[in-house]
Amino acid sequence: MDLDLLSQLVVSNQSKVLLVVMDGIGDLAGPDGQTPLEVARSPHLDQVAESGICGFHDPVGPGITPGSGPAHIGLFGYDPYRYLIGRGVLDTAGTPFVFAPGDLAARLNFATRAADGSILDRRAGRIGDAEGQRVLARLAKEIKELSGVQVLFQHVKEYRAAAIFRGRDLDGRLCDSDPQQEGLQSIPVTPTAKEASAEAVLAAQLANEFIAAAARVLADEEKANFVMMRGFDTYQPLPSFTDLYQWRATAVAAYPMYKGVARLAGMEVIEAGQQSLADEIQQVEKAWAETDFVFLHVKKTDSMGEDGNFAGKVAVIEEFDALLPRLQALRPDVLCVTGDHSTPCAMKSHSWHPVPVCIAAAYARTDTCRQFGETPFLSGGLGRIHSTDIMPLLLGHAGRLRKFGA
Amino acid sequence: MDLDLLSQLVVSNQSKVLLVVMDGIGDLAGPDGQTPLEVARSPHLDQVAESGICGFHDPVGPGITPGSGPAHIGLFGYDPYRYLIGRGVLDTAGTPFVFAPGDLAARLNFATRAADGSILDRRAGRIGDAEGQRVLARLAKEIKELSGVQVLFQHVKEYRAAAIFRGRDLDGRLCDSDPQQEGLQSIPVTPTAKEASAEAVLAAQLANEFIAAAARVLADEEKANFVMMRGFDTYQPLPSFTDLYQWRATAVAAYPMYKGVARLAGMEVIEAGQQSLADEIQQVEKAWAETDFVFLHVKKTDSMGEDGNFAGKVAVIEEFDALLPRLQALRPDVLCVTGDHSTPCAMKSHSWHPVPVCIAAAYARTDTCRQFGETPFLSGGLGRIHSTDIMPLLLGHAGRLRKFGA
Repeated sequence: MDLDLLSQLVVSNQSKVLLVVMDGIGDLAGPDGQTPLEVARSPHLDQVAESGICGFHDPVGPGITPGSGPAHIGLFGYDPYRYLIGRGVLDTAGTPFVFAPGDLAARLNFATRAADGSILDRRAGRIGDAEGQRVLARLAKEIKELSGVQVLFQHVKEYRAAAIFRGRDLDGRLCDSDPQQEGLQSIPVTPTAKEASAEAVLAAQLANEFIAAAARVLADEEKANFVMMRGFDTYQPLPSFTDLYQWRATAVAAYPMYKGVARLAGMEVIEAGQQSLADEIQQVEKAWAETDFVFLHVKKTDSMGEDGNFAGKVAVIEEFDALLPRLQALRPDVLCVTGDHSTPCAMKSHSWHPVPVCIAAAYARTDTCRQFGETPFLSGGLGRIHSTDIMPLLLGHAGRLRKFGA
Repeated sequence: MDLDLLSQLVVSNQSKVLLVVMDGIGDLAGPDGQTPLEVARSPHLDQVAESGICGFHDPVGPGITPGSGPAHIGLFGYDPYRYLIGRGVLDTAGTPFVFAPGDLAARLNFATRAADGSILDRRAGRIGDAEGQRVLARLAKEIKELSGVQVLFQHVKEYRAAAIFRGRDLDGRLCDSDPQQEGLQSIPVTPTAKEASAEAVLAAQLANEFIAAAARVLADEEKANFVMMRGFDTYQPLPSFTDLYQWRATAVAAYPMYKGVARLAGMEVIEAGQQSLADEIQQVEKAWAETDFVFLHVKKTDSMGEDGNFAGKVAVIEEFDALLPRLQALRPDVLCVTGDHSTPCAMKSHSWHPVPVCIAAAYARTDTCRQFGETPFLSGGLGRIHSTDIMPLLLGHAGRLRKFGA
């Protein structure tokens, strides 16, 4: 649904909405014919399924495997095609860095380059946080401006950082400099559009200048003597989640990227360092009284799927299920449990498979689903919806949408 | 999904995809409460259903009965509203005629006209191929150009042919000259748009000139002494199926129109004259090693539906089912069995009913369907999708789409 139109229907009330995103939760049947959600002993999730309306959502579209960015953007109600966010902006948004509209951000990976210019190690020997911060500080000291454009830096994690160009109209449609394979040379940054804009030509020139300057600054480093740039994008604020839906919104997530996408949407992000799932639940409990909407992100279901660890995924589901009563005790008016995409253990990767979704609320039209899982949800009342349908459904069930038309 | 965007996600690999289109396969329950698919003994189709994900597709949209052109265009991934192809182009594309972009094509039906100008027989006594070719040759000899526009001819079948105007910008939005009923006069061709373009006015004038000229040339014919024109359209190439999806694509179909639509999409079309279903299967087997995608068209399910022949439709399904193991023996990575539209025997015509579809592949999320049929598919995992979702799903299941976004 058109966001402007939706926003015009929004009314404010006292209801509270909890959206739980179990990352990569959707899966395929394992050897015994059941998916991790079906194998898991998860009585509380089953209770949610029983008291709610169940079905599937397509994160982006049938057949399309989404990255984490578009998958969350869709859950938050934004068209993932229209609001496609590059890795440079997404990763930086997960840090404390404060963007200004128009900033051009790129992910920066420290690398080791040989004397002949070939990339020896794309991760600079996987240097840690302290070492990453130290070499980044060297860059920040020496490179403050290039051709009249301000250069800003942000450490992300270990050998990963971000470079941000500020102060000129720039176009982020640029190729990566990362050759993706060791033994190859760094790729000159060039515009990707068939007819490159002047802003993209300038941005490419700045990026190449930057890479050369960084190489000079870091020349005496043993490991991190070079940088590679990828995921160029300019920052444009998303329509604010808070303005659109007229509520206070809070994000609880343990990983930077998910904090980033929530922050881009204008949510309040709880910063609490490394957190266990129980820590996250506690953050929700603490935030609950002073917010209307909570996005809770559970990462490890996806990590287990990526590792092909079926039993591990089952265990994470069971761990979450054991904690679920604490969330239920908060008595959310609307509780939605879903995932951002599927990460089948058999595939060890994100996939295109539709994602189970359940919405429990006083006026949910319950269906015949008694168990939280892919097979029972086939006969769920939601059928197969688009991820962007979820926010209107949550608002509707929360009594936060007025009637459309007379 | 936007085709340009989809195309950007496509990657090439070694997988092979087989799309079987059983024309008009969807149906309604007969006297005993089962549809032809459900009555048919079709153990191999049932096996496909069991190993795949099942559901329905809407060829064009809920309630909309599609022609064969839009129905196939949608299956091939093109928006059937945007890429609406007139009968003149569609029928001509099914012949060896080689179009140039901008050609204006119309179906030409030979007819018998009375001295008072009324149409006595809209099919000129159903003259056969030889007679149709003979009178068409008379036209081709005498009419080579009209008002500076080149006129080309192509025989289609029996009393059916095509006329193609080449060499000027023309607009095909014109009414048919065929009055659709015997005893009436030929209708002057006029533009159909409210505000006709100069190109449409010129095209209408050419068409009327052509009809008059043809009447003069054929004046001494006993049966085919007149022509009627219908389905005007200009030829514009579709985005190439091969370029879009980066694979070799082959079409096996016994009827010209289906070859035509496949050829318009840029597929390699096997030309083998009249073929039985077994011949078609053999064509697939021969083509298999040197192609990545095969579109196999099964015509007779539709013909039986059009004839209201329930038992005949059951028999065609059983005939196909008996041959299906030969296709399964090719071990396609993705096997999709569906139809282009429904042709219920009780209606003796195309209909708007959603069409059963099943996709079998290694990573298909199987559902509870154990039988190939309209009723079991109600609980299928695909739910109700749009025909244009099928190509992204086939590509996804074939591992031929990269992740969307970071």
